[in-house]
Amino acid sequence: MTFGILHGVSVGPGDPELITLKGLKILQSCPVVAFPAGLQGRSGVAEQIINSYLKPEQIRLSLKFPYVQKEEILEQAWQEAAAEVWPYLEKGMDVAFACEGDISFYSTFTYLAQTLKSNHPQLGINYIAGVSSPFAGASTLGLPLTCQEEKLAILPALYCPEELEKALDWAEVVVLMKVRLVYGQVWKILAKRGLLDQAWLLEKISTAEEKIYHPLSHYPQLSLSYFSLMLIKQNQNKIGRI
Amino acid sequence: MTFGILHGVSVGPGDPELITLKGLKILQSCPVVAFPAGLQGRSGVAEQIINSYLKPEQIRLSLKFPYVQKEEILEQAWQEAAAEVWPYLEKGMDVAFACEGDISFYSTFTYLAQTLKSNHPQLGINYIAGVSSPFAGASTLGLPLTCQEEKLAILPALYCPEELEKALDWAEVVVLMKVRLVYGQVWKILAKRGLLDQAWLLEKISTAEEKIYHPLSHYPQLSLSYFSLMLIKQNQNKIGRI
Repeated sequence: MTFGILHGVSVGPGDPELITLKGLKILQSCPVVAFPAGLQGRSGVAEQIINSYLKPEQIRLSLKFPYVQKEEILEQAWQEAAAEVWPYLEKGMDVAFACEGDISFYSTFTYLAQTLKSNHPQLGINYIAGVSSPFAGASTLGLPLTCQEEKLAILPALYCPEELEKALDWAEVVVLMKVRLVYGQVWKILAKRGLLDQAWLLEKISTAEEKIYHPLSHYPQLSLSYFSLMLIKQNQNKIGRI
Repeated sequence: MTFGILHGVSVGPGDPELITLKGLKILQSCPVVAFPAGLQGRSGVAEQIINSYLKPEQIRLSLKFPYVQKEEILEQAWQEAAAEVWPYLEKGMDVAFACEGDISFYSTFTYLAQTLKSNHPQLGINYIAGVSSPFAGASTLGLPLTCQEEKLAILPALYCPEELEKALDWAEVVVLMKVRLVYGQVWKILAKRGLLDQAWLLEKISTAEEKIYHPLSHYPQLSLSYFSLMLIKQNQNKIGRI
């Protein structure tokens, strides 16, 4: 008996039209579609993005991935998610996992895929790339994210101010993912370096709730949602004439 | 009289199905479609990607952007490209510029858009984000590009080995764009750091001519094409179990 394929489908940053043709085709061709569960019973971001594309006959699996750091809790959640998906794959049914942004970029899919692959080494896994939020953010702003010889540094949720200092020393363009918890610290570093007017803060890019904060000199404090992203362009005055 | 809109449409890394629904819709709705000319009379990469989507009645503009560093030659080429596009915009016709990868990421579009905007400040410009090659490369390999607390450094065409050393000191994951001209230097740095087996070299991702080189210990020298990309995952043994 041949297993089904596990497809990791990138569904983009928020606007349902930012899914790729390939992603949509695979999403609609799988009898089973999985996605991360939302908080407090609400739909998750990936589910909201793909909702209008799914057909009634497709089985939907809402998988729980807790927002915690503790390894044992995470490991258990991954095993539970894998156990929900596996029976379909075992029967030969393809499963599409819908992931906001890009499937390879800080994606929950990585852990689900690794857990399933570790339990069932013969499982076939297919990744479909998509639009990730730093690029969508630059397009929203009408800014070139990088040009010419600019280097780009991307930091995940930032817990240590030294990491940002090092990134700013090294790269002309710095992106901070999920900046919510460290915004105050980041603001002080940008203020010290005179970069408040060369930084853009974006929330929920390409959705109806999108917000843009700029220049940051107006916003020393902000109460942000989980999907908040900062772009810092140190050379913006020099080369960003748009 | 209202000007037409200039749309920068990301068409993805090579596979025509990796364009977004939004990108395709805008591309097909514009009476004029522009793209960078290929070398020696051949079709350029963006043109190849979108060719099957275009309708006979759409006007095609093949714009020349020379592969040189010299500022005056570049500036002149941007002005010439702008002069080819402007008459359509001036008549109120929308123009879609098709760009391989993502429109904000080391894109020729930046210079065309800046030149037109500088000549005609009222011009409306619309950016449509897309799939960029580092993400498409990770999906091709079935690797998570970044996970957990990993930092990502992306370098453009690399002319100075110290830049790579600094990137490897700072980030767990390093991507080198257009690595062709410096491959030999890069190989030596990776060899010194014991990273040859944690680096992947990809050419012409997601096209029929795609090639993957790994482990790099087998390839101290390579004759590469322009679209060559390297992914280096320093922690791969620790977290990349796929």
